[in-house]
Amino acid sequence: MGGDHGPGVVIPAAALALERRPDTRYLLFGDEKLVQPLVAAHPKLAQRAKIIHCDVAVKMTDKPSQALRQGRRVSSMWRAVEAVKRGEADCAVSAGNTGALMAMAKICLHMLPMIERPALAAMWPTMRGESIVLDVGASIGADAQHLVDLAVMGAALARIVFDIETPTVGLLNVGVEEIKGLEEVKAAGRMLREGAWPGLRYHGFVEGDDLGRGTVDVFVTEGFTGNIALKTAEGTARQIGQFLREAMSATLATRIGYLLARGAFQALRRKLDPGRSNGAIFLGLDGVVIKSHGGADAESYAGAIEVGYDMVRQDLLANIRDMIGHTSEARPPTLASS
Amino acid sequence: MGGDHGPGVVIPAAALALERRPDTRYLLFGDEKLVQPLVAAHPKLAQRAKIIHCDVAVKMTDKPSQALRQGRRVSSMWRAVEAVKRGEADCAVSAGNTGALMAMAKICLHMLPMIERPALAAMWPTMRGESIVLDVGASIGADAQHLVDLAVMGAALARIVFDIETPTVGLLNVGVEEIKGLEEVKAAGRMLREGAWPGLRYHGFVEGDDLGRGTVDVFVTEGFTGNIALKTAEGTARQIGQFLREAMSATLATRIGYLLARGAFQALRRKLDPGRSNGAIFLGLDGVVIKSHGGADAESYAGAIEVGYDMVRQDLLANIRDMIGHTSEARPPTLASS
Repeated sequence: MGGDHGPGVVIPAAALALERRPDTRYLLFGDEKLVQPLVAAHPKLAQRAKIIHCDVAVKMTDKPSQALRQGRRVSSMWRAVEAVKRGEADCAVSAGNTGALMAMAKICLHMLPMIERPALAAMWPTMRGESIVLDVGASIGADAQHLVDLAVMGAALARIVFDIETPTVGLLNVGVEEIKGLEEVKAAGRMLREGAWPGLRYHGFVEGDDLGRGTVDVFVTEGFTGNIALKTAEGTARQIGQFLREAMSATLATRIGYLLARGAFQALRRKLDPGRSNGAIFLGLDGVVIKSHGGADAESYAGAIEVGYDMVRQDLLANIRDMIGHTSEARPPTLASS
Repeated sequence: MGGDHGPGVVIPAAALALERRPDTRYLLFGDEKLVQPLVAAHPKLAQRAKIIHCDVAVKMTDKPSQALRQGRRVSSMWRAVEAVKRGEADCAVSAGNTGALMAMAKICLHMLPMIERPALAAMWPTMRGESIVLDVGASIGADAQHLVDLAVMGAALARIVFDIETPTVGLLNVGVEEIKGLEEVKAAGRMLREGAWPGLRYHGFVEGDDLGRGTVDVFVTEGFTGNIALKTAEGTARQIGQFLREAMSATLATRIGYLLARGAFQALRRKLDPGRSNGAIFLGLDGVVIKSHGGADAESYAGAIEVGYDMVRQDLLANIRDMIGHTSEARPPTLASS
């Protein structure tokens, strides 16, 4: 029911995802009157989907506390997350209210052992390919231990997504020198440099322009800065796209040039398409929950479903548990020295 | 002596700036042996410049405390700033070590009354034209009062740069709803919304993608996030530029298309050229100090000199003092309610 378009996007997206991943099945939580006719228009989906009617839908403008008060146990969002807890679903996907989704997932699914707060990880297109950036807005503010948790969880994700044994991890800072930046970032840097962290290679501090370069596999930052960096990059890409459109329609020569180079522009658009990297992953929860952009279209929402599919197939949770288990021995001494 | 290229860029830049602003004169602080031959190559500049030999140059890698210990009173950076204090220069321009420049300027020039910490303001190209973003890295961390100070100083700058009576001001946050984000950002939002702030119109919270849109004239954020947002945008622009170059050279058709549309690409490059908006302005100091990008070329460094020129001609300091004076009456009650 969530996102800017509700079931009008979610149902066609499920039909698309089913086409590409024929071994999926769908539990659709929402208002039956709205959902049923949309599902009926996709006969293949109708065979693989079950509609579970819910009277309550969390609004995009609800505070998390409001959403919990009114929607706990009864809202479509809660019940989708609960299906994961009960083992009825392997993952939950939502384009709804991020804060409410996080609060409900945290209460319903609980956190993984040793992890205190959830994080939201995004795939970031770079000059080298893709990197993982976290936290892009699940938790505001982070102490050194939380930044280290983000490094460990991000590396576990990178191992399965990029299929590399020891992904490189960088801490986002305002300079690469060890003396610069926020105290908690410096303390996390010391912990990562001095501790033993199997499964990740600590690169050091990285700066904002390293994101586009893809200097490391995993960029770690606190949720406020991460969210603003992500949206700043999206905004810059959109702005350049508009400048480019204006420039290409300026004269007859540029218009002909545009027609000849159309393929190049389409390739560029695909490369920068936020839809291609839609589907941010909640990390730290004892269950797989994927957050789609609120404004996603069906193609883009299907991408978020596929991210969830991949995380389940590649056993994200076991990988994170494994990393936490290995690093927990490294933890007490580094904690004491921080 | 600062920046990645030292006098090899600074002297040709001064020659360029003098050509465009014939009423300027230059005090050149640095190693005479290096500076003198470069100045001699520009006869017009030689007539309008005076070289002041300094034995010490602050290194790009010095900590601010180191720079102060070794460079106070004797380094080229200190003496350039001191010339402003003594009234021998109207403004100081440097491509050197940002932290050292800030520390020296703060100690030598002092802060303006009521302002506790300096800020660094950058011009940001947007879909609408340009906006001012501050703080892009002078101070790490900010309480509500400092964010309000940034709003007031940014608005004073916008008034003279954009020539508008009451510029709009937005607080960068992770959502536009009043309930979201860091406590200090929410408190600053309340102070700006409820107080009387002549000379600015408070818009509310803005997000990262509003930067590219140019939603407000002045974007206010704390220095850690501002620095990362600025560098993220620069990195994204560079990344798209590379994607575009690759895409345009992919096939014969795209290469011909590129040739036909060359003018459009040049226009785009000019629009996004960081050189065009080089010259970040230190705000809060009792004197005009401009920070050029360390990697600036002569054209771009000349741009930073011209920013300094404009700030002096348009009497930036009087404008900020005026704004602070007007808002200081509004201050005590809003402070008490924060």
